[in-house]
Amino acid sequence: MRNIAILGATGSIGTQTLSVAREREDVRVVSLSAYSDVALMEAEAREFRPELVCMYDENAAADLRCRLRDLPVRVASGMEGLIEAATLPGADLVVGAIVGMVGIRPTVEAVKAGKDIAIANKETLVTAGHIIMPLVRERGVKLLPVDSEHSAIFQCLEGERQNDVSRVLLTCSGGPFRGYTREQLQKVTKEQALHHPNWKMGPKVTIDSSTLANKGLEVMEAHWLFSVPYEKIEVVVHPESVVHSIVEFEDGAVKAQLGLPDMRTPIAYALSYPFRRPLSGGRLDFGNLSALHFEKPDTAVFSALRLAYEAGMRGGNAPTVFNAADECAVKAFLAGKIPYTGIAETIEEAMTRIPYDEAPDLEDVFETERAVREAFS
Amino acid sequence: MRNIAILGATGSIGTQTLSVAREREDVRVVSLSAYSDVALMEAEAREFRPELVCMYDENAAADLRCRLRDLPVRVASGMEGLIEAATLPGADLVVGAIVGMVGIRPTVEAVKAGKDIAIANKETLVTAGHIIMPLVRERGVKLLPVDSEHSAIFQCLEGERQNDVSRVLLTCSGGPFRGYTREQLQKVTKEQALHHPNWKMGPKVTIDSSTLANKGLEVMEAHWLFSVPYEKIEVVVHPESVVHSIVEFEDGAVKAQLGLPDMRTPIAYALSYPFRRPLSGGRLDFGNLSALHFEKPDTAVFSALRLAYEAGMRGGNAPTVFNAADECAVKAFLAGKIPYTGIAETIEEAMTRIPYDEAPDLEDVFETERAVREAFS
Repeated sequence: MRNIAILGATGSIGTQTLSVAREREDVRVVSLSAYSDVALMEAEAREFRPELVCMYDENAAADLRCRLRDLPVRVASGMEGLIEAATLPGADLVVGAIVGMVGIRPTVEAVKAGKDIAIANKETLVTAGHIIMPLVRERGVKLLPVDSEHSAIFQCLEGERQNDVSRVLLTCSGGPFRGYTREQLQKVTKEQALHHPNWKMGPKVTIDSSTLANKGLEVMEAHWLFSVPYEKIEVVVHPESVVHSIVEFEDGAVKAQLGLPDMRTPIAYALSYPFRRPLSGGRLDFGNLSALHFEKPDTAVFSALRLAYEAGMRGGNAPTVFNAADECAVKAFLAGKIPYTGIAETIEEAMTRIPYDEAPDLEDVFETERAVREAFS
Repeated sequence: MRNIAILGATGSIGTQTLSVAREREDVRVVSLSAYSDVALMEAEAREFRPELVCMYDENAAADLRCRLRDLPVRVASGMEGLIEAATLPGADLVVGAIVGMVGIRPTVEAVKAGKDIAIANKETLVTAGHIIMPLVRERGVKLLPVDSEHSAIFQCLEGERQNDVSRVLLTCSGGPFRGYTREQLQKVTKEQALHHPNWKMGPKVTIDSSTLANKGLEVMEAHWLFSVPYEKIEVVVHPESVVHSIVEFEDGAVKAQLGLPDMRTPIAYALSYPFRRPLSGGRLDFGNLSALHFEKPDTAVFSALRLAYEAGMRGGNAPTVFNAADECAVKAFLAGKIPYTGIAETIEEAMTRIPYDEAPDLEDVFETERAVREAFS
């Protein structure tokens, strides 16, 4: 039996985690958290009967408390509630599916409490990888990737030695604007950018996928998750999203993990690791598979990817600057305040303007984020 | 240090094994065997200084003995010499790269002597899988595949549990006659059939690759190597030969092993297993990779593949009949005695005419082979 806590239970990864939990008799949900979606959280709580739920928003928590008064479910709120949900004594595995910096602290606390982590929150590794990885090793907990790319690499590395890895290749659909020139990119609208060709995801991730900023964040996550230097991490554009990622070894052998674009597979893997359990859903049909294509990403046009490598290699608070500036810029783009190409421009400007901090602690990371937000919101 | 014996040291796999050994300080060659190529064997013996060499042919052995009289190398001959080379006390790993039924007995004896086996001889598993696999388990030796397809599956299974496998997919270039109709196939000449699009191999394997009989033999080998029922083994035509084979798991995840078409990679893997060691050679370049295609094999036209499944599922001496009839037919085709489509027809006829033996021992297997040879040579 695996007892899981889901942080961000009403979002895309959270609801898909519950969909996997629904068909697994060996998975029990012990706590759930969400920002403010009371209606969905009520339904989830009624179905999965967790011990604790947390609404980050105080008013939402009050509302939920009222709605759930017939159930023996405790309703907490705020960061304190979030941390309680993440460190619940009965939880073995915390699914960190909160979007944004708010996911960092509960993840750190969960690690400190000795919980295994299925990590979907990008910010934790991108901005605080240098803090969380030593903690993960110290506490001996498992850090299991949920992203399809990182799960693919993780699966390819099972039974292999870290030392034998020569390259890690993150695949990337290339997004809806693959092949665009800089000029074409300037005219991209919000509607166009919100339509991803292969994956159904939240709006922030969808925009980030189209600019390749998301792939850049994934490069930084891969660096921390697999202790691979940036020189050994490559991005390969693969429009069909069938090959989820690739590892090359010192002997020239290459392993890849493939599948339908269904996040339930990597989620299920993280929930069952080190085992696999049968999972419903479609299967790849090689007899009827369209041709698979691979090409180099155009980092001259999709400059967010180039900037992500720069931020990652610079280290310190640079990844935080990259991430926070991207978040501000995506918001501004979705609000119609800046053009599509303004997203990468904002990141580049922030990386120039915000002072560099070589070894930020968690407070410094948040301070950097605030500084970016003040300058670019 | 790994001390290796190479049976079939002057053939395609044998010479490539030596090419790998040449760049591995941790591999020492302790014995070599060949059929009759004295000149090449002399060169190999002078370079690698094995303790023992065996020429299967008596005259060749006499010749070699004379040529190598200045070296402290013992020269043996015949089946006795072959078995001595395979069971040499100083050998840890036997590379079984002999082509044909003659490879079976030394492999069995090597297993009995507790040697790990890097197996490239198809006949051993195809005709005597039911005998050798229990022996392998009993002696606790490792049976390491050398074929690129089986090595790929083996690599994909590292760190995984047998029980979680839902399908094994052997890739297949489709050969030079992919897409041909039965009518077109009837006119295929020896020259056309000897030209494989992707792999450089010996003539027998090249013809077998073009008829898909080779893939059929590989299906039977996969059945024994990985304890997978035939219902879970599929063949996928993949003309580019970049994906070497594929495993699908119960959760829908799929793993594949990829690489350039270079037999040195699977050979090196078998020599180093469970480790990997750096190996010279080209690397897959995903930025410049041509599109990868996958399709179902046409078993109505390439009936040897259908017959192989039939033989495998029937079991007993049926795989031996398939294999021996194919060998006779390929010889007859290369000698200009039968048309290309006569190869599959000969196999089918043999499978009908040769009496079925449900549980043949090693002698029965050889007896079946003789019966096929008498009827179809």
